[in-house]
Amino acid sequence: MRKSSQPPEAALGHAVRERRKALGWSQENLGFESGLHRTYIGVIERGEKSISLGGLVHISKILNVKASDLLREAGL
Amino acid sequence: MRKSSQPPEAALGHAVRERRKALGWSQENLGFESGLHRTYIGVIERGEKSISLGGLVHISKILNVKASDLLREAGL
Repeated sequence: MRKSSQPPEAALGHAVRERRKALGWSQENLGFESGLHRTYIGVIERGEKSISLGGLVHISKILNVKASDLLREAGL
Repeated sequence: MRKSSQPPEAALGHAVRERRKALGWSQENLGFESGLHRTYIGVIERGEKSISLGGLVHISKILNVKASDLLREAGL
């Protein structure tokens, strides 16, 4: 459950991490599937960088979830 | 209903426009409420520019809808 004071990037990052782990994937696996570098996956999961709508939709597809559902899981 | 070939920015822009009109607001009203310029509202509604997660959450709050629900309305 996210804290309400958490920035949206951190809340989303947490949801991405949970989805990735539910798939049994490492950050490297997700990076390979998404065409993104594993260090960038780490940056997103820690909420250190803003993500664009296009990036959110892209990562959601790889994680086999709708972007709206991923945001809902993030409490957003 | 969005076409599946539509880029995500255009799908979201359409959902933003529908929500704004449902509130009976002009682009100027939404601009005033959100602190964004009305021309930027037009750019977002026409899907001409990518929006960040923070921007999406911000506009959703002004439109009194959860970001996840706005994305769902956009078919994303």
